[in-house]
Amino acid sequence: MEISTASSVFEPRDPAFESRIRDSFHRQFVMATIGGELQSVEPGVVCIELPFRKELCQQHGFLHAGIVTTIVDSACGYAALSLSEPGRGVLTVEYKVSLIAPARGERFRAIGKVLKPGGTLCFTEGEVWALGGEEESLIARMSATMMGIAEERKRKD
Amino acid sequence: MEISTASSVFEPRDPAFESRIRDSFHRQFVMATIGGELQSVEPGVVCIELPFRKELCQQHGFLHAGIVTTIVDSACGYAALSLSEPGRGVLTVEYKVSLIAPARGERFRAIGKVLKPGGTLCFTEGEVWALGGEEESLIARMSATMMGIAEERKRKD
Amino acid sequence: MEISTASSVFEPRDPAFESRIRDSFHRQFVMATIGGELQSVEPGVVCIELPFRKELCQQHGFLHAGIVTTIVDSACGYAALSLSEPGRGVLTVEYKVSLIAPARGERFRAIGKVLKPGGTLCFTEGEVWALGGEEESLIARMSATMMGIAEERKRKD
Amino acid sequence: MEISTASSVFEPRDPAFESRIRDSFHRQFVMATIGGELQSVEPGVVCIELPFRKELCQQHGFLHAGIVTTIVDSACGYAALSLSEPGRGVLTVEYKVSLIAPARGERFRAIGKVLKPGGTLCFTEGEVWALGGEEESLIARMSATMMGIAEERKRKD
Repeated sequence: MEISTASSVFEPRDPAFESRIRDSFHRQFVMATIGGELQSVEPGVVCIELPFRKELCQQHGFLHAGIVTTIVDSACGYAALSLSEPGRGVLTVEYKVSLIAPARGERFRAIGKVLKPGGTLCFTEGEVWALGGEEESLIARMSATMMGIAEERKRKD
Repeated sequence: MEISTASSVFEPRDPAFESRIRDSFHRQFVMATIGGELQSVEPGVVCIELPFRKELCQQHGFLHAGIVTTIVDSACGYAALSLSEPGRGVLTVEYKVSLIAPARGERFRAIGKVLKPGGTLCFTEGEVWALGGEEESLIARMSATMMGIAEERKRKD
Repeated sequence: MEISTASSVFEPRDPAFESRIRDSFHRQFVMATIGGELQSVEPGVVCIELPFRKELCQQHGFLHAGIVTTIVDSACGYAALSLSEPGRGVLTVEYKVSLIAPARGERFRAIGKVLKPGGTLCFTEGEVWALGGEEESLIARMSATMMGIAEERKRKD
Repeated sequence: MEISTASSVFEPRDPAFESRIRDSFHRQFVMATIGGELQSVEPGVVCIELPFRKELCQQHGFLHAGIVTTIVDSACGYAALSLSEPGRGVLTVEYKVSLIAPARGERFRAIGKVLKPGGTLCFTEGEVWALGGEEESLIARMSATMMGIAEERKRKD
């Protein structure tokens, strides 16, 4: 059920999309705070990983659902950004997250993927895998709508 | 559009519900990490606040949507827990979050509220307000399904 | 928990908003097919009702969730349309529906309400009530994102 | 991006799962009303089709989103039912639907698939394709939570 990468399908409009995303990722200070790592950037598909840390857990020792959401929201947002024009940015409109198994693992991998690109709205989907046991297990699925915005608007605050 | 408190409607099944929730909140280590504060606990309604911190932001200086989700998910989960029987716990099944405005503010208030209680499933709704400007503004709405579980199962890991 | 009407808050941009919505409703042929009735149109709040019919049920004699969704999606869409400029239309981007109780009743009332208006995106919320028993009961809640479009685009098909 | 069938992965608990679903489908009177056709039933994957009819449309001549939802909700529900034990039924708890393109076509195909089975809760995903033009196009995606129930409870009303 892993989302198949579709990089052959999508043509990036900005040849510098990867460096643009890596720059942006470093300005997401929350990623340094929680320990998120940008693993790979392809047109329409972005992967972020996060090592397990007790400091990010809820009361039963699982990674808090909000932290699971943090990495997969960023992965989906950057997947959308990878297909947008130079000078454009992306904001999350809404998402749904299904927490299909407790977030137990040594490491977590979030994959965001564009389902349908668009200048105004971009539909994305994501998933989060727990790594480190005998096998990888799917722990969450996200369905997210992203909105393209002028980067200037994003920066003005 | 603020969710009206309905504490008069719901009768807690565990007279010690508040101390149970405060104990659990202290075991949510992610709350200490991000600076979340448990403000109030009523039957079916829980409020958590979070001061703004740059270390929790995305690339434009807004609070990351995943952190917004973290506090409102916990507020909704504890709202559900406030109505559950002694010895029972709660896990989040799924949620949808609408990010209706950028998370800009000095402080954020998440309110979780039970829409319909139940032993197996509990429907909750939440909202997040940005505080500190001229006026409070609603920045996010959550619709979340919680599942009741035996607390033992939660602790076994 | 009923959504409070906020008609005093919202100022319609098109003085003919009500007739525009009533015209559009009559072109929603699915409403005639299922028996939906447009009850009231206020700025930002629209109500649609539907009498129970066996022909709209699932296998246990409840109204099918998709039919519940049909009336509350239209109510939310028209709530958004009531605040849009003349010549603009509305399309549904996405929704989440929580089915908090079986759709059992003699009649169903869907109320759609604007949470946050906007030219590009409009956030709405809806609810569905079952009528006809001893008391009204809330059976569903919707959270929906609507997108404003040029009416010409909508008509071109 | 079509959901890969995973029938080899899931083992049905009721050898009569297909006839059970076909019987139930015939009791979903809404399906006869709108013209829904049960195409295929495999363990964990169910397909329902619907020919285009003007009587099911919204104001621009597209299939109403609620009707799109009706067929994909049933497909997801029956996908969950295909893996449940004899004598058990299924109710929809909640779903999110992303309407990624207008529902324009001669025919619509809804595919529901189990993401994670379970006795209490079953996570499913669905998609709807428009058929009949030059090529098939994906018009909607669903993420739905189903709840297992005793069939007796479902019938008692």
